[in-house]
Amino acid sequence: MNILVMNCGSSSLKYQLINMETKDVLAKGICERIGIEGSRHVYSAKDKDKRVIEKAMPNHSIAVNMVLETLIDKEVGVINGINDIKAVGHRVLNAGKYYPNSVIVDENVKNAIRDCFDLGPLHNPANLTGIIECEAAMPNIPQIAVFDTAFHQTMPPKAYLYAIPKEYREKYNIRRYGFHGTSHSYVSKRLVKFTGLDINNSKVIVCHLGNGSSISAVMNGKCVDTTMGFTPLEGLMMGTRSGDIDPAVVEFLMNKEGLSVKEVMDILNKKSGVLAMSGISSDFRDVEDAANNGDEDAINTQEAFSYRVAKYIGAYVAAMNGVDAIAFTAGVGENDSAIRGLVCKYLGYLGVVINPEANKVRGKESELTTPDSKVKVCIIPTDEEMAIAEETVALISK
Amino acid sequence: MNILVMNCGSSSLKYQLINMETKDVLAKGICERIGIEGSRHVYSAKDKDKRVIEKAMPNHSIAVNMVLETLIDKEVGVINGINDIKAVGHRVLNAGKYYPNSVIVDENVKNAIRDCFDLGPLHNPANLTGIIECEAAMPNIPQIAVFDTAFHQTMPPKAYLYAIPKEYREKYNIRRYGFHGTSHSYVSKRLVKFTGLDINNSKVIVCHLGNGSSISAVMNGKCVDTTMGFTPLEGLMMGTRSGDIDPAVVEFLMNKEGLSVKEVMDILNKKSGVLAMSGISSDFRDVEDAANNGDEDAINTQEAFSYRVAKYIGAYVAAMNGVDAIAFTAGVGENDSAIRGLVCKYLGYLGVVINPEANKVRGKESELTTPDSKVKVCIIPTDEEMAIAEETVALISK
Repeated sequence: MNILVMNCGSSSLKYQLINMETKDVLAKGICERIGIEGSRHVYSAKDKDKRVIEKAMPNHSIAVNMVLETLIDKEVGVINGINDIKAVGHRVLNAGKYYPNSVIVDENVKNAIRDCFDLGPLHNPANLTGIIECEAAMPNIPQIAVFDTAFHQTMPPKAYLYAIPKEYREKYNIRRYGFHGTSHSYVSKRLVKFTGLDINNSKVIVCHLGNGSSISAVMNGKCVDTTMGFTPLEGLMMGTRSGDIDPAVVEFLMNKEGLSVKEVMDILNKKSGVLAMSGISSDFRDVEDAANNGDEDAINTQEAFSYRVAKYIGAYVAAMNGVDAIAFTAGVGENDSAIRGLVCKYLGYLGVVINPEANKVRGKESELTTPDSKVKVCIIPTDEEMAIAEETVALISK
Repeated sequence: MNILVMNCGSSSLKYQLINMETKDVLAKGICERIGIEGSRHVYSAKDKDKRVIEKAMPNHSIAVNMVLETLIDKEVGVINGINDIKAVGHRVLNAGKYYPNSVIVDENVKNAIRDCFDLGPLHNPANLTGIIECEAAMPNIPQIAVFDTAFHQTMPPKAYLYAIPKEYREKYNIRRYGFHGTSHSYVSKRLVKFTGLDINNSKVIVCHLGNGSSISAVMNGKCVDTTMGFTPLEGLMMGTRSGDIDPAVVEFLMNKEGLSVKEVMDILNKKSGVLAMSGISSDFRDVEDAANNGDEDAINTQEAFSYRVAKYIGAYVAAMNGVDAIAFTAGVGENDSAIRGLVCKYLGYLGVVINPEANKVRGKESELTTPDSKVKVCIIPTDEEMAIAEETVALISK
């Protein structure tokens, strides 16, 4: 059974075709600069060379059809016809209050995604376009919406409520949503299995640390809290996002620098975070190189980032009144042993004992703690496309 | 030795005259509506009736002189002359980067307070006015500035740095400062003594929960982190302040409601917090009454408030890699056993064992935990005026 996974942005379309029996990625690719001059399609099939097809893609409809043509192409394709695709799983940013799970797309689902445009102004419209174009190109194949917020819908009010007037909360559905839900769901389940916990009696924390970063607290398989909020800006500092900050700084910068609120939000989203604190790069590999050469801002950035991660871990241990296991995942979490080491230095009080040799591992499902550590700390690689494909299979098999 | 403690606001002046040998408050009062029609001076001396003197106070100079005249008044006064005041301790909001301690006022100190007007636009100018008027009225008596931020100046960069561009951080000194410093300093020291800890080997957390609320982590007598930031808006939800919130909500509300940034900041500072979440009151006594009558918003507010306190406690335990003792202080912390109980329910993993009988105590220095509790949880009443007076004595005795 082959599942096509789609992640549609405003001018891009990323996809993977996955064979669910073998878990092989048969082909994957990205269409870039859709609707912009110089658009191109980068495609690679399993065991074959990468291909770059430079061809005009004035809209998402043409991009979707180009992807399908490539997948069934006699020469570079990997399937015989469109009907070899069993279903399409779409990543969708925000389902607001509507869906706590993935759903098979129908008119109601499309209306709900539309209704949440305000909550994901950059992503939701593009996600919906991807769905509509796939429906048109593959009219008999089920389309599934997998929401980045769904896993966090189990958060209780104490975790999702903002302390602002009810009038605004209700009028605009302003609350904490959380994102990276597909990853947190997938990794928390893998972590429970990998550490041999009973999911119905488990307290785990997932640290998804990449260019975007978030942490979630998952009790008995259900998310009870997460660091991102109304938007992905809240929580940890990230590649270019400030994360938590006194909201009064927004007003202060507007007044002092004569900036519009949009300009300040652009600074907080695109020019802040690891990039701004280090003054070097949004990429922790560059920051680590500089830190190793004694750069003070780089050292402060590593320390501040890992300190904030440790504080959220500490907060979530309190939120669940305990913790059984902690997972590091995503680019930084899976590969950056320095950051992992710095975070775990704070956790001795929990009985965490790191095995420094084990912590050298990169990108492999593995335990970093010694056998006598009271809390297991692990690397659990995330795979959002596989997670979306699995959600899709689960829905069409019902 | 008598110390006069002054807390000067833009249109008010609060004061206490304290006998430091007996720790008696000889007299205290407030001048209200200074510079506004209908100004009045409310005065009460030890063991005497309260007096309300309704008299025009067009400026702070006249208010200061009225206070002094009352203190030495033959009938209602408590001292014979101005020289019976040994020194004046002034509460000053923000010393920015300048002073990690209280200081005797000279021209440099006044310039520093002036230089930090931007960091405390409502408070610093009024605080400086109070100092200048006291200097004029009591030219031979030392004036001491006790800064609300000073105790937090020992925070390391990982705790005080925001992940925003260095250009803005340096140009405007944008960083986390923390407030309520006098209270956190006083209570943390009392807590260490009360629990018999060695201050040089101690990890304590102070929960100052009142109409304004903040928590601090204090290691070996030095503050290492606190919840308020660039302004008192960051951190816990408070009586009318939102506390932590996704900064993107500021932009969202401005755009949707057509509000200016000032209007949104007014909402977050004055119409949010406990008031907004409960829809009832900014006072936890009213919220508790409603919760006891089954009001769902009131119950959610109690739960959300105590959940956020517990998460910050958890975060600070991680920050210090352990904790020896936790103090509750200020109006809610000293008196609200329901909130204290809700907070401590999260802390079982630390070995906290609350004695429910002991937790019924209000406003008295006492331990709430059982003898076998691994972490001691206590009520330590705060007394900011006494703390300012003690800081003042310490400085003039050097």
